Amino acid sequence: MDVSSATALAHPNIALIKYWGNSDDEWTIPANGSISLTLGGLFTRVQVTVDKALIQDQLFLEGEVASEAAQVRVRQFMDHVRRFSGKQMFCRIESTSNFPRGSGIASSAAAFAAMALAAAKVYGLPTDPCELSRLARLGSGSACRSIYGGFVEWIAGIDHQSSYAIPLAPKDYWDLVDCVAVVSTEHKAVSSREGHRLAKTSPLQPCRVQTASQRIERCRRAILERDFGQLAQVVELDSNLMHSVMMTSQPPLFYWRGETLIIMEEVRRWRNQGQPVCYTVDAGPNVHVLTLAAHAEWVREKLSQIAGVKGVIVAAPGEGAVLV
Amino acid sequence: MDVSSATALAHPNIALIKYWGNSDDEWTIPANGSISLTLGGLFTRVQVTVDKALIQDQLFLEGEVASEAAQVRVRQFMDHVRRFSGKQMFCRIESTSNFPRGSGIASSAAAFAAMALAAAKVYGLPTDPCELSRLARLGSGSACRSIYGGFVEWIAGIDHQSSYAIPLAPKDYWDLVDCVAVVSTEHKAVSSREGHRLAKTSPLQPCRVQTASQRIERCRRAILERDFGQLAQVVELDSNLMHSVMMTSQPPLFYWRGETLIIMEEVRRWRNQGQPVCYTVDAGPNVHVLTLAAHAEWVREKLSQIAGVKGVIVAAPGEGAVLV
Repeated sequence: MDVSSATALAHPNIALIKYWGNSDDEWTIPANGSISLTLGGLFTRVQVTVDKALIQDQLFLEGEVASEAAQVRVRQFMDHVRRFSGKQMFCRIESTSNFPRGSGIASSAAAFAAMALAAAKVYGLPTDPCELSRLARLGSGSACRSIYGGFVEWIAGIDHQSSYAIPLAPKDYWDLVDCVAVVSTEHKAVSSREGHRLAKTSPLQPCRVQTASQRIERCRRAILERDFGQLAQVVELDSNLMHSVMMTSQPPLFYWRGETLIIMEEVRRWRNQGQPVCYTVDAGPNVHVLTLAAHAEWVREKLSQIAGVKGVIVAAPGEGAVLV
Repeated sequence: MDVSSATALAHPNIALIKYWGNSDDEWTIPANGSISLTLGGLFTRVQVTVDKALIQDQLFLEGEVASEAAQVRVRQFMDHVRRFSGKQMFCRIESTSNFPRGSGIASSAAAFAAMALAAAKVYGLPTDPCELSRLARLGSGSACRSIYGGFVEWIAGIDHQSSYAIPLAPKDYWDLVDCVAVVSTEHKAVSSREGHRLAKTSPLQPCRVQTASQRIERCRRAILERDFGQLAQVVELDSNLMHSVMMTSQPPLFYWRGETLIIMEEVRRWRNQGQPVCYTVDAGPNVHVLTLAAHAEWVREKLSQIAGVKGVIVAAPGEGAVLV
């Protein structure tokens, strides 16, 4: 039986091995596989409600009518839901988050993971995680990883059927913590979506993609063996590789700022002094500093003291998407 | 007739298409070709004097006995000179420069270009530019370009005979000016020599190398057509590509600092506003800002106003190596 409304909650994730560029932009089939950690404490809640009076979907963000660009993106996602379910109804979609936009934490992953689950429930689509992961991917690539909690791998695949995330280890497997040093809350000038399309204009993207499976393998082993030293090496390398592709695409995308470089240098210095820390940077200037739970307070304190750091958000591993 | 002493003078150069990594480290055969502009006003003067009392070469920098590392490097170069000439004599070698070390301008290119010419004279080796370029390359790769003035291309080649520089256009062909924004005068932690050896540990080096000939072609055409817009695109891309390889080698080499990024961003902004400016960064944090002579004073003034810029060195195209 179909329901007329469902609400789901999902967490953002931080990629340890990065997704950047698609082999198929239309179906969001990534150029390479990726690995992420789902972040607890931070969440997006999405309510999907059928409204027979509507002739198109209506998106509300934090209680306000969303921008036209956001509406279009959500309607395209819901078109997939309608096609898969064979049901032509439109919905009111309400999304709220407990973390600020521009906090350096991608909100689209949590939003589309929650939306996929709530919409699947409302439209009577299968709600097993593998199906949900494929569906969420159509909204935002990295959303396919937020279906699962803990440590997650996205199998690149070659088409819609073969491209989805799988769980690598549950959230309690390893007490990693992500300390996000926020240096800017400005909204980024180039969206990740547009950035993914530019990846293929970098002369370096083929080399990054061709060597990604080795890094996936190293990262997976580091997680399963809880080997922070190995994790640090491959996570920083992979982040630097993605930014290399960004900065050499045409036009170039520079997400790093002066403070970003300074924090990255500090993190390497702390690690040389014996601290279990490493950095990873997404499509923005803020720096995600990974450490072990016992060291999180020290890292938070040290990051706060760096000039230009406006705040530090601390997140431990979180659960997968759930209905509420 | 051999002479017992000769003095030569040569200028440093700034690479527009970068040399980074060798296909043969022992013979300094580069992984890819490169293009540079010889910089006038700045020079290194080297006097090579046979001293029959010596049992090994003695290097003096600015009148003082050089470090052991510098002595070893110069003796290895002079061993080539002895082998090629069949003469076993040792020399006192005195080098002086009119520009400070750590100014962001590589001193080894000017020094080995001048040393190659002075030593060839003293040891009776051929002094035609092509032979001198090969010889200078054995001291420091980029020195092979400083044999010529103006715009110079280094043909990568595959062995000692086929790897040398050729002139592309004389110094008066185009009134480019290099404004070097000095943000640090600290000596670099990793030498360029060591860096070249690390290049092959970056997953990105094959992609950079495989696409270099396209950039050589674009840069050569931009110079010959005096097309600043085209030059700017390819010069900045190529600089970003080299730093991408550096930052993703193992261990990573980060030469950029916060100020480096800020200046690069400013330069892109000025160009978007219509100024003929572009940047290129060598193995250090200082930023070379290229512009046309008529705009050099404006660029110098703007660079001076950026926080963290300790000075600006302005250099116009210069001549090749000469005996004095």
